Amino acid sequence: MTATTLSGVVAPVLTPYDDDGQPHAQRFVAHAQRLLVGGCTALAPFGTTGEATSLGMHERHALLDALVAGGIAPARLLPGTGSCSLADCVELTRQAVAHGCAGVLLLPPFYYKGISDEGIFRFIAEVIERVGDAQLRVYLYHIPPQAVIGYSVELVGRLRDAYPQTVVGLKDSSGDWQNTRAIIEAFPGFATFSGSEITLLANLRAGGAGCITATANVNAGPLRALFDDWRSDAADAMQAAITARRELIQSKPMIPMLKHIVAQQTGDPGWLRVRPPLLELAAADAQTVLTSLAA
Amino acid sequence: MTATTLSGVVAPVLTPYDDDGQPHAQRFVAHAQRLLVGGCTALAPFGTTGEATSLGMHERHALLDALVAGGIAPARLLPGTGSCSLADCVELTRQAVAHGCAGVLLLPPFYYKGISDEGIFRFIAEVIERVGDAQLRVYLYHIPPQAVIGYSVELVGRLRDAYPQTVVGLKDSSGDWQNTRAIIEAFPGFATFSGSEITLLANLRAGGAGCITATANVNAGPLRALFDDWRSDAADAMQAAITARRELIQSKPMIPMLKHIVAQQTGDPGWLRVRPPLLELAAADAQTVLTSLAA
Repeated sequence: MTATTLSGVVAPVLTPYDDDGQPHAQRFVAHAQRLLVGGCTALAPFGTTGEATSLGMHERHALLDALVAGGIAPARLLPGTGSCSLADCVELTRQAVAHGCAGVLLLPPFYYKGISDEGIFRFIAEVIERVGDAQLRVYLYHIPPQAVIGYSVELVGRLRDAYPQTVVGLKDSSGDWQNTRAIIEAFPGFATFSGSEITLLANLRAGGAGCITATANVNAGPLRALFDDWRSDAADAMQAAITARRELIQSKPMIPMLKHIVAQQTGDPGWLRVRPPLLELAAADAQTVLTSLAA
Repeated sequence: MTATTLSGVVAPVLTPYDDDGQPHAQRFVAHAQRLLVGGCTALAPFGTTGEATSLGMHERHALLDALVAGGIAPARLLPGTGSCSLADCVELTRQAVAHGCAGVLLLPPFYYKGISDEGIFRFIAEVIERVGDAQLRVYLYHIPPQAVIGYSVELVGRLRDAYPQTVVGLKDSSGDWQNTRAIIEAFPGFATFSGSEITLLANLRAGGAGCITATANVNAGPLRALFDDWRSDAADAMQAAITARRELIQSKPMIPMLKHIVAQQTGDPGWLRVRPPLLELAAADAQTVLTSLAA
């Protein structure tokens, strides 16, 4: 790893399953390869979109190994290694560092609620110190809609001050652009990603790093074009088209809807499966979106 | 295992650490032994009070092995094996069944929010079917203050109807006695535990199974006396004394406060440590409660 931080369009890679509900490494690696060819600047496997918290420790280990063995450059990988378990988070983070991944995306410890900034600070600090590797780069994963607890602007500042070489970025999935903008403005040089491409252009104009967004699994090309040309006169029109497409897709439950789109793109209905507690989306419900996207 | 379900006073066993923050198996086993001698009818290691979700898979495996190796009868063990990960939940549950534990306490998959009853049903059903052992007994762990999602009365009924020999009980940590009573009344023969001893007498009068309560780590004797004598004329006075003690303890953050009490009872200050994101309680803050308890 180097001092360079990630930027651009990052896909939180969907996780496919086989007919028995086990992760399907071959489909997973092939999808990751397609995403990089299709415009993603990096990949964030094992995020919320990747159903990471529904995967087991052995499964997460094996799938990261499979990506690297499958030829995905570790310098383009930002695996989610978060867990409410300190020990499991350390174990997954060590594996990512050993592979030479560009960084790791860290959820706060999300089981207990009403946790103080001090408690979250100590958790992240202990992960960093237990891993104890100067190559580690941490991107904080702020997603209060699922984790409930999150990283306040003050806490981001504390972590960055304590570990300036290590805590280098953040993904903001709060859905609150004012919060994203506050972080970008408070911490110049910090790699702040929007959690949705709806604010991609605003993010880039404010000095942010880009977006890590679920829909990059199916729409990377237009997102990458905007990232590359955000200073052009066409940028606002590009953003408007991207936003319209996003709003169409998120009119249905996001993860199963994305799997329908990938199944259609690849001609592989094996992609439709999700793991409980998520539910598959009925073909008829998905079809309205698929038809509109094709139009 | 037999068709008999657990009842009485069950302690969600606190987890001690060593000076490096690793679980301390020797202190853990000794504490479990003391709890059974002190009046607990059974033990529920790896609950919220036991900081289970902060422990790693290897740590949870090793600590359950240590309890059994330390002579705790598996028939008196109800380990928490819940995880938001389906695969990890299956793995931990298999271990508990292999040890012959009386049952397992199952959190719902707690990462994703806004999950439907159908999604939770499929998660629990898949755990039961993947474990695939007629000896398995599942106690549902309903704790919306931490897990946010939970088991509705309707969902409890669905799970019980689908797996009548397996889904045999529930711990209600909602803090809502009307919910506990509704479950007791809806499902005769189902082992419904209160998550706090404040409703122990009410639970027993309504036909419930008893309580699984954090404070059983430090106050098992009086709880057991009420369980044994709840039909006596003294029961209301016993409940009043128990409630007063509970309210005193829960005036401070519960887990670190309990660790102060155990440290005092055992003369072992090593008990004070908690794992992030929880925070230790300052000695001065704990002292006011310790002094009142002694009075």
